[in-house]
Amino acid sequence: MARLRQAANRYICKKFDMGKEITERSADYSQWYIDLVKKADLAENSDVRGCMIIKPYGFSIWEKIQQALDKMFKDTGHVNAYFPLFVPKSLFEAEEKNAEGFAKECAIVTHYRLKADAANKGKLIVDPEAKLEEELVVRPTSEAIIWSTYKKWVQSYRDLPLLINQWANVVRWEMRTRLFLRTSEFLWQEGHTAHATREEAEKEALLMMNVYAEFAEKFMALPVLRGKKSDGEKFPGAADTYCIEALMQDGKALQAGTSHFLGQNFAKAFDVQFTNKEGKLEFVWGTSWGVSTRLMGALIMAHGDDDGLIIPPRLASIHAVIIPIFKNEDELKRISEKAEALKKNLQQAGLTVKYDARDTHKPGFKFAEYELKGIPVRIAIGPRDLENGTMEVARRDTKVKQAMKFEDAAKNIQELLEEIQANLFERALKYREEHTTIVNSYDEFKKTLDEKGGFVLAHWDGSSETETKVKEETKATIRCIPLEENQESGACIFTGKPSSQRVVFARAY
Amino acid sequence: MARLRQAANRYICKKFDMGKEITERSADYSQWYIDLVKKADLAENSDVRGCMIIKPYGFSIWEKIQQALDKMFKDTGHVNAYFPLFVPKSLFEAEEKNAEGFAKECAIVTHYRLKADAANKGKLIVDPEAKLEEELVVRPTSEAIIWSTYKKWVQSYRDLPLLINQWANVVRWEMRTRLFLRTSEFLWQEGHTAHATREEAEKEALLMMNVYAEFAEKFMALPVLRGKKSDGEKFPGAADTYCIEALMQDGKALQAGTSHFLGQNFAKAFDVQFTNKEGKLEFVWGTSWGVSTRLMGALIMAHGDDDGLIIPPRLASIHAVIIPIFKNEDELKRISEKAEALKKNLQQAGLTVKYDARDTHKPGFKFAEYELKGIPVRIAIGPRDLENGTMEVARRDTKVKQAMKFEDAAKNIQELLEEIQANLFERALKYREEHTTIVNSYDEFKKTLDEKGGFVLAHWDGSSETETKVKEETKATIRCIPLEENQESGACIFTGKPSSQRVVFARAY
Repeated sequence: MARLRQAANRYICKKFDMGKEITERSADYSQWYIDLVKKADLAENSDVRGCMIIKPYGFSIWEKIQQALDKMFKDTGHVNAYFPLFVPKSLFEAEEKNAEGFAKECAIVTHYRLKADAANKGKLIVDPEAKLEEELVVRPTSEAIIWSTYKKWVQSYRDLPLLINQWANVVRWEMRTRLFLRTSEFLWQEGHTAHATREEAEKEALLMMNVYAEFAEKFMALPVLRGKKSDGEKFPGAADTYCIEALMQDGKALQAGTSHFLGQNFAKAFDVQFTNKEGKLEFVWGTSWGVSTRLMGALIMAHGDDDGLIIPPRLASIHAVIIPIFKNEDELKRISEKAEALKKNLQQAGLTVKYDARDTHKPGFKFAEYELKGIPVRIAIGPRDLENGTMEVARRDTKVKQAMKFEDAAKNIQELLEEIQANLFERALKYREEHTTIVNSYDEFKKTLDEKGGFVLAHWDGSSETETKVKEETKATIRCIPLEENQESGACIFTGKPSSQRVVFARAY
Repeated sequence: MARLRQAANRYICKKFDMGKEITERSADYSQWYIDLVKKADLAENSDVRGCMIIKPYGFSIWEKIQQALDKMFKDTGHVNAYFPLFVPKSLFEAEEKNAEGFAKECAIVTHYRLKADAANKGKLIVDPEAKLEEELVVRPTSEAIIWSTYKKWVQSYRDLPLLINQWANVVRWEMRTRLFLRTSEFLWQEGHTAHATREEAEKEALLMMNVYAEFAEKFMALPVLRGKKSDGEKFPGAADTYCIEALMQDGKALQAGTSHFLGQNFAKAFDVQFTNKEGKLEFVWGTSWGVSTRLMGALIMAHGDDDGLIIPPRLASIHAVIIPIFKNEDELKRISEKAEALKKNLQQAGLTVKYDARDTHKPGFKFAEYELKGIPVRIAIGPRDLENGTMEVARRDTKVKQAMKFEDAAKNIQELLEEIQANLFERALKYREEHTTIVNSYDEFKKTLDEKGGFVLAHWDGSSETETKVKEETKATIRCIPLEENQESGACIFTGKPSSQRVVFARAY
């Protein structure tokens, strides 16, 4: 067995033979990210500029994200619905700030028919006679189409609140794209709620920020800061934008989810009024909130290492893989019996398990493959294990291996998965804590950004002008204004003007 | 209690007060359908021509359909992925028959930016400088984009089969639309598989037809015919199209799902070749298969009655609703205790239960409301029920009521739901059998279509010419060529030419 393991290890060292070389993080973090996305079969670029193909393994993780979030939305009283992909231009432009914010990145449908190209047999051209009277915007977000619908649904306070979510694709024409992080088409969910009072809508916006934070921390093992966006960074058309901000391993921040308090902006743009309990007409208060396939990028960058992905167990589409170590058919047969029983045992405990008995690939190749894909637990079973009633269990996060008895395997593996989940969170939290710096001068601010990265807590005078200048000079943006009470006051690092609390700066994705 | 029930019944008779009047089926079946869709809050038209809004209640049923199908797909070895919404025109036109088939109903993106309209403050216009070099087709179906991707994924027989499905929205620019049945944008799933051999691909196409049939019969309680489409009715680009065909209560047929054996058509169009075990290059064999939100239309039309929807229990998002019958606060309080306990009890048995304790609406109003929405089981609890340890249980399908003891409620309600599921299927099957007619002459054929409707089994000479003429004269199409062996031979009802088997004609949606 030891000899076989050595052989396996040798094979791992030769994993470059697999054509799966991954750039090391320290060499080129960006390339490491792209390598992981592509080589772990998560996603790839398509023939359509900026649009990605989410491959089956990547999609299986997105499905886990969807399931967990969908349950959290429903547990907080929301229901799903579906609204059209297209937004007529006249509706799109109704809320001016929102329209202005997205106008530059909208895909526009102008025609509804192709016809044979008389000049080129077998080719098609857009039929000029099939021009739409009004152009249609492919939704970059759905406030416009949804609020124009809410107008029909809301008359009285009895019709409120509306607590609706949709899972959908949206299109924002991006010039510079990166798989998952910024693509022209992406998948997301967008919640759109309507309320009778300002208080209720604000509470909803905060509730959903907290739902996102809980999801990020509990499922993605990703510690996040919660806060409010500055006016310069908020959603076009929102009164306030709340957000969760995570830190990646290269010290850059990533906005992982946003929840907007829309005030009455969309209600006014679409004339959505209701009769209150006193019989008076009022405009409805709104929120919207969303997370997208961008979360896949966060997941990869927060936990991955130079050998590949590390998927937190609660989002893993495969929790454990069992690999037989065998020299001949007979050994494989005997190991397979045990492995199949183990698989069944683990499945009954609610785990998703793969038994990889392929005889076309060596164990070492398989070890490297599942490390690359970030499967949380790997179980190897060899002939000696059969004699001893044991198996070798390796955890993906720390690479630590242990011998484990077959008996109580389900319980022990479950506990191990919980330990991995907790460890990933703790590791990311530790990284964030080590990369969160309080600074009191602009020099210190710039030095920290350049030498250490991470979140930088500094005083800011609250003006968009200062924010813009700091961004121009350092590429750092205000990620959020923390919501915690009892913030100390001080002086803006850039202007020296008074500041009521520190805000969080970082360079960001 | 009896008096209260009478009051409730009176209220039902006055349900026209609810503003929920439904046209009777016998008066106008089409209007009845639209009334149900709208008044039961399933869907409505949007401001975008031909695009619908699927409302929360409608979407909750679609989610049940998705869940059941998704499990069946995964149980048969398929995985989900996601491919781009847009298809570059040059890819779209590669498979000529497919392109020709969809060219006339394609939404086309030509520009990627809006800009401020100098002539109209606050308005936007399409930026003429942001014209795409190549137009993008909003996918009407995804064979083109997927096969252009499979070309990159397939080199060797080891890469096959690919068994991939996606849940997506598609757009087919329809001139005459009807909610769920025919909309410009609709939701669907589309499976796209690639195989090393013709046999395997044909087997897959048949397998998925059978998966659809099983889903229709087991979950939708909808008996379906399985068969092959004639050349005139098959999918553009397919070698063979298999389908399931259902019969609606107005005697019209509805195609509920299709599964296409694509031969090597798309592999040739996109040059997808693989090295077989003998080291020779071959084109890949393909299938595609899909069902859409059209199934919602089938569900409504197959089972609904003049009082509203009837949702088969296995697709019901609410299995049972509990309604308290009370005269005062004290009674409501005592009933609520019992009702909440019952709800919990039923939930523990895996049922979704709603307790409607609103004091703003009378029981009769609620009865009518849940009948309209097709909730399979309604439970009424009044003060006398508390004394007797009973409740009144009404089933939606037959409207039969029975007194039921609280004890064993979970078991009894579960059995009742199974009975309802079975009864709906039997009822639909009986209707289909009564509306399936064997005819031997063209006169008989026309008479049957006009007077009775339904499926008409007739001999056909196999020519597209005859098919077209029959369609022109009678509006009936060949729904499918049954797959059963041992078909009798005969003479075509239209031309008298020889026919090897009867085919199924009907007027269809």
